[in-house]
Amino acid sequence: MKSNIIYLDNNATTCVDKKVVDAMMPYFTEQYGNPSSIYDLAHTANKAVRKSREIMRDFLGANDPKEIIFTSCGSESANMAIKGVLELNRAKKHLITTKVEHPCVLNLHKDLEKHGYKVDYIGVDSNGDLDAAELLSKVDKDTALVSVMYANNETGAIFPVEEIAAKVKEINPETKIFVDAVQAAGKIPINVKDTKIDFMGISAHKFHGPKGIGALYVKSGSMVSPLIIGGHQERGKRAGTENVPYIVGMAKAAELAMENMEDELTRVKCLRDTLEEGILSKIKNARLNSTSKNRVPNTTNIGFLYIEGELILLHLNDAGICASSGSACTSGSLEPSHVLRAMGVPFTSLHGSIRFSLSRYTKEEDINYVVQELPHIIDKLAKISPFQKELGEILNK
Amino acid sequence: MKSNIIYLDNNATTCVDKKVVDAMMPYFTEQYGNPSSIYDLAHTANKAVRKSREIMRDFLGANDPKEIIFTSCGSESANMAIKGVLELNRAKKHLITTKVEHPCVLNLHKDLEKHGYKVDYIGVDSNGDLDAAELLSKVDKDTALVSVMYANNETGAIFPVEEIAAKVKEINPETKIFVDAVQAAGKIPINVKDTKIDFMGISAHKFHGPKGIGALYVKSGSMVSPLIIGGHQERGKRAGTENVPYIVGMAKAAELAMENMEDELTRVKCLRDTLEEGILSKIKNARLNSTSKNRVPNTTNIGFLYIEGELILLHLNDAGICASSGSACTSGSLEPSHVLRAMGVPFTSLHGSIRFSLSRYTKEEDINYVVQELPHIIDKLAKISPFQKELGEILNK
Repeated sequence: MKSNIIYLDNNATTCVDKKVVDAMMPYFTEQYGNPSSIYDLAHTANKAVRKSREIMRDFLGANDPKEIIFTSCGSESANMAIKGVLELNRAKKHLITTKVEHPCVLNLHKDLEKHGYKVDYIGVDSNGDLDAAELLSKVDKDTALVSVMYANNETGAIFPVEEIAAKVKEINPETKIFVDAVQAAGKIPINVKDTKIDFMGISAHKFHGPKGIGALYVKSGSMVSPLIIGGHQERGKRAGTENVPYIVGMAKAAELAMENMEDELTRVKCLRDTLEEGILSKIKNARLNSTSKNRVPNTTNIGFLYIEGELILLHLNDAGICASSGSACTSGSLEPSHVLRAMGVPFTSLHGSIRFSLSRYTKEEDINYVVQELPHIIDKLAKISPFQKELGEILNK
Repeated sequence: MKSNIIYLDNNATTCVDKKVVDAMMPYFTEQYGNPSSIYDLAHTANKAVRKSREIMRDFLGANDPKEIIFTSCGSESANMAIKGVLELNRAKKHLITTKVEHPCVLNLHKDLEKHGYKVDYIGVDSNGDLDAAELLSKVDKDTALVSVMYANNETGAIFPVEEIAAKVKEINPETKIFVDAVQAAGKIPINVKDTKIDFMGISAHKFHGPKGIGALYVKSGSMVSPLIIGGHQERGKRAGTENVPYIVGMAKAAELAMENMEDELTRVKCLRDTLEEGILSKIKNARLNSTSKNRVPNTTNIGFLYIEGELILLHLNDAGICASSGSACTSGSLEPSHVLRAMGVPFTSLHGSIRFSLSRYTKEEDINYVVQELPHIIDKLAKISPFQKELGEILNK
């Protein structure tokens, strides 16, 4: 990790841990066998995949390594679960999801609407918390699938997925539950075993593993049709030669995340709170967007009234600070965040909202530096803002 | 690469070139930005992806880097092309493919038959060459897609895909053409630009790139619906955070393959021929299966009458030699090769057929060692065979 960069965009992607790289290395040039082949070189690779599957079982608190299917990313996991459930159950045409899902879930549901599905999109309140009661009120006998994220990528709000899963099943035991846990895995402990969740997707590059590898948890007894048909890999559920180095790397990243969970829940959370309090106390036009009481420890989202977010980000970049205005998967579009809109964040700060997402690599001096630099940036931008009058004095002395 | 192993299973997977590993390394722990983000760290990653796309354009002889979509493997490329074409054209219900495709194409077609598609599976002759005339005779106005592999993974036979594409389009200009070039890329020059091929899939790990990354060529003007819906990556055609290290790695592998093409077409081919001639001249019950005049330079497939292939492989493994009895994607099943069956290879050698697939790492002494060791292995197995009488003397003195 470049020491001169302060990287606070860990919800977009993370630096791969050096131990993860070390774990992967032998599988590129030495133990490069195809796990399906029958010679010793292949057995080593096969064994590494099996061992990794056991680690991933522990990481998600699953019952059985067979419940873990390796995929190429969180988006594939979501597409596989959602399309795979519907493929096996073509009679039911009702779906429920939330307005604040990641684009891989949201855009897929929009696509499914074009194919005859009726979708209820459940809203969130001004804290970013899900309206679970509204969600449950929509479940009926035609509901094929409920897809709810574990933690929101932009606000960090944690949704009560276990409780929702249990209650949905009480109303309709046949309804399947998919949880996009991409932003929860590695940040809070997950224990899927004792829940009613059928499917859970994760992605390694959000917890210091490589980009391009993910997993889908499929509860024993829950069925899913494959998205990628072909060879017998992943017990016929996902064709394609196993990405052995990355599978090993994801497992190593999961191990490290489990080891560092305490740090994440204490030190990282404390740094996040320091950052938040520092910014809010120093900058008059700052408004906390992510006010949920139940948040992942690394995420905050702060709006700056009348200031353009992209401009803030460019100035942060000049100061060597990486942050974002929302999901990297929607950046490039000029649309304001669908998450903040669903929360009813007012127009005046909607376009000036910045997400800071920390990691176990974040140091206290990083946070101090941001708290020192950001007020000057906002002050400078306020002075060139057409809304200078509305803004008034920016800095608290 | 472990120096004490003779790896002749390069059609199953390859050793990642050390230069490929070196090219990938910075993108794990230093240039780890999400290419969609807006800060400098992300720009470096974004630029690397763009540069890699240009290299892949050159590798396939495409017109435009925009014609290259990065996927997670050859199987995903095939699934994306085939399902993606049918998704956009639901009226046409006829498909054509061959009996000797890779499972990702073959099993997908079998699945499509369950969903109302009529599929013609075209056969091959005893040399493994495709019956192109039969294929063309099946094209009609209802034919949505023709899927033909560039080179067969088990025999190395090259199919006249350019000619087939041109003639199919003469019969029905609306019929789309998908070519699975996984076993051709890196072994023979590919120039898709001047062909009528709409889609072409490749996989990096077959040409000394990593497992878990592939590409789909989509000709400008040819449309395909995404398989993985979500973010805007790959211009909306394939969601998921870009696997930057592997994209860079695949491009490096492609560059190296282009540089080594001459070696592949001359030295590797010569070694393959030496291996083939050595085995056929020394072992009486050996029969060449891959007799096509037009073969990729690295592949041979040889049957040993009345001897069990798995036993040969285990003895080869004991001698430090890696080879296979067919596709790694079908291994584990006890079914004999669907490719050799389609060629009409007789029962007596069907179960005792071994594929040797070389690479630019293969040395002359490797081949000499195999030619020296294999006769003893076959002789030993013949002596314990229940068909000892039929076999008679195994070794040519």
